[in-house]
Amino acid sequence: MPNPTAAMLVIGDEILSGRTRDANMHHLAGQLTDHGIDLKEVRVVSDDPAAIVAAVQALSATYDSVFTSGGIGPTHDDITADCIAAAFDTPIDIRDDARAILAEHYAKSGTDLNAARLRMARIPDGATLIENPVSAAPGFTLKNVHVMAGVPSVFQSMVASVLPTLTGGAPLISKTMRIERGEGDIAGPLGDIATAHPDLSIGSYPFQKDGRYGANVVIRGTSGAEVDAALTKLADHFPA
Amino acid sequence: MPNPTAAMLVIGDEILSGRTRDANMHHLAGQLTDHGIDLKEVRVVSDDPAAIVAAVQALSATYDSVFTSGGIGPTHDDITADCIAAAFDTPIDIRDDARAILAEHYAKSGTDLNAARLRMARIPDGATLIENPVSAAPGFTLKNVHVMAGVPSVFQSMVASVLPTLTGGAPLISKTMRIERGEGDIAGPLGDIATAHPDLSIGSYPFQKDGRYGANVVIRGTSGAEVDAALTKLADHFPA
Repeated sequence: MPNPTAAMLVIGDEILSGRTRDANMHHLAGQLTDHGIDLKEVRVVSDDPAAIVAAVQALSATYDSVFTSGGIGPTHDDITADCIAAAFDTPIDIRDDARAILAEHYAKSGTDLNAARLRMARIPDGATLIENPVSAAPGFTLKNVHVMAGVPSVFQSMVASVLPTLTGGAPLISKTMRIERGEGDIAGPLGDIATAHPDLSIGSYPFQKDGRYGANVVIRGTSGAEVDAALTKLADHFPA
Repeated sequence: MPNPTAAMLVIGDEILSGRTRDANMHHLAGQLTDHGIDLKEVRVVSDDPAAIVAAVQALSATYDSVFTSGGIGPTHDDITADCIAAAFDTPIDIRDDARAILAEHYAKSGTDLNAARLRMARIPDGATLIENPVSAAPGFTLKNVHVMAGVPSVFQSMVASVLPTLTGGAPLISKTMRIERGEGDIAGPLGDIATAHPDLSIGSYPFQKDGRYGANVVIRGTSGAEVDAALTKLADHFPA
């Protein structure tokens, strides 16, 4: 059976302007691979309601699950929750359980739970909350979309909250062989091995460092025996 | 007049599996911002012809220009050039000028220009070549799509070759103010300033480090005077 599929939607002008370098995509990609879920597509869109709604609808319809990152804080540019509600034509309002989480959190530090902070308790109808052990304000899951914060420490804690609730497939086994030959010399034999093993994903990633060059060939698959068989063929062609 | 728009398409299983952390998106985002071109969307797709073709067609139709990264080397998983040709229903074959570039490059090192390396001279009809000062094998531009290598040093050299050929708009002016207050306290006044300056893009990016917390508020716009006016209002609300 093929693995479940997933997509990620990164929301934020700060990534597209080059101000901030996204860290969440790389984290989620590794976590999903370990969990046996195939990340098939990532999109990054700006803080634009029409762009967010269209991307959520397209990705939610195409993949088994969608993970979003960013735009769920208290400021005017935090519009993700409203866009998710709009994407599924679902009402959204301040919810009591989310308000209670915020009230308890801010009471501890004597901070005022003002109107801006209360925006973080706006949750679409029918969603379940995602725990945020870092800074309390919850994420949420609506249908197959998991809505999480953009701050990397919070994003990572929310991924850890969500992943155990999802059914994974067989984790991908990945083995790498470093070959100090030009990619053009590796390409022929590697193509033959790829053709002989259609269930494997075989990639070649060239490197060039300190005057040495070659490629790291990565063989990935859910069957360890088949990965090893392909690796053995490769080693026969290119003895160390 | 609004700035020209752009999208980026990152092609590669290695990014989606979490093996490699993409570096090209952040580089291109900064370069386009400096050049007055608004990067509006990024997509990352796997080495899957149908996914690549669909993304190229969608992005090419929506934005003024598209930049792709990855999949133009000599190995079997390098399928970008064929997918670009398919996306525009254009024939593709080995082209003499691209072959000459490769022949000269490999002759210098006494390396055989074999069938695998010759694949890098496959260029869709009607494309113009993008110079690759790092490793010779050219990228190409077909219609509004610029096809570049995934290796960061090569990608960056190709971006430098392409950007001067594009018409940019007014570069974005960006000023940042660090405010050591909770985002929930900043949100109200900040929302008012954003409403009063609809031409500006105002973002709030929370931080928490070494026991201090607050937000970096970034004000972006093409009019330096308006950016400064909004910044002054913000400073009045939150004196250092």
